[in-house]
Order: sequence, then C-alpha cells, then structure tokens
Amino acid sequence: SGLVLVKNPHLDLMEEDVLYHLDLGTKTHNLPAMFGDIKFVCVGGSPNRMRAFAQFMQRELGLAAAGEDVADICAGSDRYAMYRAGPVLSISHGMGIPSISIMLHELIKLLHHAKCRDVTIIRIGTSGGLGIEAGSVVITDTAVDSSFQPRFEQVVLDDVVVRSTELDKDLAEELLTCSRDIPDFPTLIGHTMCTYDFYEGQGRLDGALCSFSSEKKLEYLRRAYEAGVRNIEMESSAFAALCGLCGLKGESCRLHLL
Amino acid sequence: SGLVLVKNPHLDLMEEDVLYHLDLGTKTHNLPAMFGDIKFVCVGGSPNRMRAFAQFMQRELGLAAAGEDVADICAGSDRYAMYRAGPVLSISHGMGIPSISIMLHELIKLLHHAKCRDVTIIRIGTSGGLGIEAGSVVITDTAVDSSFQPRFEQVVLDDVVVRSTELDKDLAEELLTCSRDIPDFPTLIGHTMCTYDFYEGQGRLDGALCSFSSEKKLEYLRRAYEAGVRNIEMESSAFAALCGLCGLKGESCRLHLL
Repeated sequence: SGLVLVKNPHLDLMEEDVLYHLDLGTKTHNLPAMFGDIKFVCVGGSPNRMRAFAQFMQRELGLAAAGEDVADICAGSDRYAMYRAGPVLSISHGMGIPSISIMLHELIKLLHHAKCRDVTIIRIGTSGGLGIEAGSVVITDTAVDSSFQPRFEQVVLDDVVVRSTELDKDLAEELLTCSRDIPDFPTLIGHTMCTYDFYEGQGRLDGALCSFSSEKKLEYLRRAYEAGVRNIEMESSAFAALCGLCGLKGESCRLHLL
Repeated sequence: SGLVLVKNPHLDLMEEDVLYHLDLGTKTHNLPAMFGDIKFVCVGGSPNRMRAFAQFMQRELGLAAAGEDVADICAGSDRYAMYRAGPVLSISHGMGIPSISIMLHELIKLLHHAKCRDVTIIRIGTSGGLGIEAGSVVITDTAVDSSFQPRFEQVVLDDVVVRSTELDKDLAEELLTCSRDIPDFPTLIGHTMCTYDFYEGQGRLDGALCSFSSEKKLEYLRRAYEAGVRNIEMESSAFAALCGLCGLKGESCRLHLL
C-alpha cells in the first residue's frame, strides 16, 4: 500500500500521541493536513544545514523567491529543526545513533498518522572518507558496525536485538545515475561504517583520550577498506535498521570533505 | 595540581588544536585568557535550557541586570551552545552518549589548554524517575548500564574498553546537603541507568517500534529498582567515565518531571 508502518500494537490504543521532541501531536495538530502530501524526507545532523537545504529545495522547485525564509515547524522544541519545501521535508537529527533514533521514531509515527504514501527518505551530510578522493560522495549500500558486519545491535531492555542494515539498492543506483549530471562530485557506492564515538571510535589521534597507537589505527583502517568500507560516520546503522523495519525507502549520501 | 588531564601523547606534538564542534581553537582563540578562571562547568542536553541557566547564574552571582542577554561562545557552530556567567560555563551536549562524548572530548581539551584548575562539572537536566515522586531530583552516585553494572563499554577501533562510571561521592553528599535548603524538590542519591535508546531501550510503549510486552517491561523495571536504579537517561555513563579519566570532579543531578 506504500503506507509507513509502525510496529507497535500499543499505539492504536492511545487516545493521543505526543511527538514530544518534535513538538507535534495527534490532538494538537492536524497531521494529515500538514504532512499528508510529503513524498521525500531529507535528514542531516546540523539544523542550519537542513534549513539551508530547505531553502535550496524551495528555489529548485520554483516555490519561493530567492532569499525567502522557511519556518521551523518544530520551533517549540530545540531538540530538532524541521522545514518543508513542497513535498520535501528537511529535518535535523543531531549527532549519533541515540539522537537520530529519537527523531526517526517520532518521524515514522508522524508519517504514519499523516497517512503518507510512498515516502523516500535520504540522509545527507558529511563523513570521513576512507581511501577516496576529498570531495567524493559515498552512497551507502549497507551500513556496517566496527567489526565490518552488516548489523545494528539494539539493546531492548536487557536483550540485544540484531537488525539488518541494508539500504535500498534501487534507490542507490538511481542516485548514482543522478550523480553523473554533477561532474564536480565524484560519486561511488560503498559500505559505510557507523561508530558510537567520533574520537577513539574512529581512530582520531586528537581527542582528549587516545588509547591506541598510530600503527594500530592504520592497520584497522586498512582492514576496513578491504572489507568494502568507504566512509565512516555515526548514524547510518540505526537509520538503515529503522527505515527497513518501517517500510521507508531509505538511502544515505555523504560528502567526504577533507 | 588540580589541572585537567588529557591522556593523549599525540596532542603535545600538534601545532594547532582545532576544537571543531565548539568552533574554538588554540591558534584562533586565546583560551587561557578566555577560560583560565573557569571553576564550574554545567552541562545539559538542550541549548535553550543552558542559555536560561547561564542567565539565572548571572542574576544569582549579581553579574548582570535582569533580562540582560548572554552571548553564545560557540555561535559559529550549531552543534553545541556555550555561555558563561563569571566562573561558571554552561554548555549544551545534545542527546545520547555519542553527542555528549564529542562535546566532552573538546571541553576537556579546552580546559586543559586554558590551564584551568580545580574544575567541578555538573550535569543538569531531566530524566525518567523509577519508583520516586514526580518533581524529585536524583543525584547520581554511579551510572549503570542496561544490565545494572557500573561500567561503560567504549568501542575503540575494534576493541571494547571497559571504563568505570563512579562519580564523585563527596560532591554528591555536598549537593545533597545544599538540597536541604530547597524544600520544594525532594532530593536523593541513587544509581542512574544510562541507555542508548529512548523508546525501546527504556521500555517506552509509544515508539514506532515496540518489541516487548508490558509485563516484560514491568519485570525489568522492578529488577532495575531492586538494583538501586532511581532514574534513567542517556548520557551519564560516558560523562562519568570521561570525567573520571581526566581528573574532573563530576556529578549528575536530574529532575524527574512526570
């Protein structure tokens, strides 16, 4: 049916669903009227960037004059920022798996309550590249963990539930085809490694702590490259797992800056 | 000596240290002049709350007229917000362990570069209470994981390093003594459980996914209470581990709202 799925039998029994961190709710807002026609959701870490992206989409879609402002739909909350440009929603998710997970739980419920159909969700932003040219864009086929395995281990109470982290292959190919029109950004499809930590977790030598040698770091990154990892970031595995479970066609495209 | 410790031999060899997510650096800013007299750092999830807290501290310390504004020291970055009121720094850290870890790595380096001495760091904010009255404040003695163990498992490349999550007992007692002057907020010392997920990880029945029964949830929370857990949140274990390793006297005080 193309509808967004929620997998929680308790939701139907609730009189009201408050999407607390988005400052939206089923009783306070007419979600089908506000969001029913949404077809694309783009998410990224930084609120300023997601605002700039919504303004860019407005111009690209011919919806607004240059310089016209977009309003933050979640202005009552400072946890996330949300903007829309026609059928495109642009939302920030902060940094790390816990932060993007809260946003995705509430976004998925929002799209469900709004009865949206055939929604595509794309994560955009920057990441650390591995053995690729600076300025390259990596389209993720599969998110992998720090052992290069395609899995997301979710702690549910005191159980560990293992979830798949494959993303939509057709959408990846479609995005790769689109990238051929933009020669300035070399684009490739590869695995994305998702870590819980930016400094020690990703082998950075400039954190407050560093409990490994440069040799160990190089050996590890070499093994990651051989396993097909082309970039490293902090949200893709939870993104892939949640999109997969809830019937959202999802992809992640990340620019390697340095 | 009371100095803040960094445990990274590579830092001394670096010509410049860019605290990227704080938009500060050793070449672009005179960190000892800007921060050398800081004695207290208060951290919390929400940027708006940390701004309000800095304004409150300014009034309490008689440093500014009512309504006078505070400037965001990290205005060039939208990852975190930082304000100061005399010797007190007030910083936001977003939601979840990965987000607070990035901020703490850069904050610890900032205090180190600024040659701060005898710094006390206190995490403030809200949390979910367990078997306690709404409106209670929990001062954490030890952060525990989802198995109620006092440990933080940090993935460093592909190794798991286990770190202690005990907080400063003297500071906890001192804060408890202070709380006796504020009768409106019942205050107690207890364990704080730190999770990676807000919905399934904390047993909430209103997420987009819910893969456990209400019975399982109740049984789990009962066991948590018996193990000494009095509140649940998403940052305390990384906070305790990093403060402990870097010689920062740290505590966490959280208000149970609902």
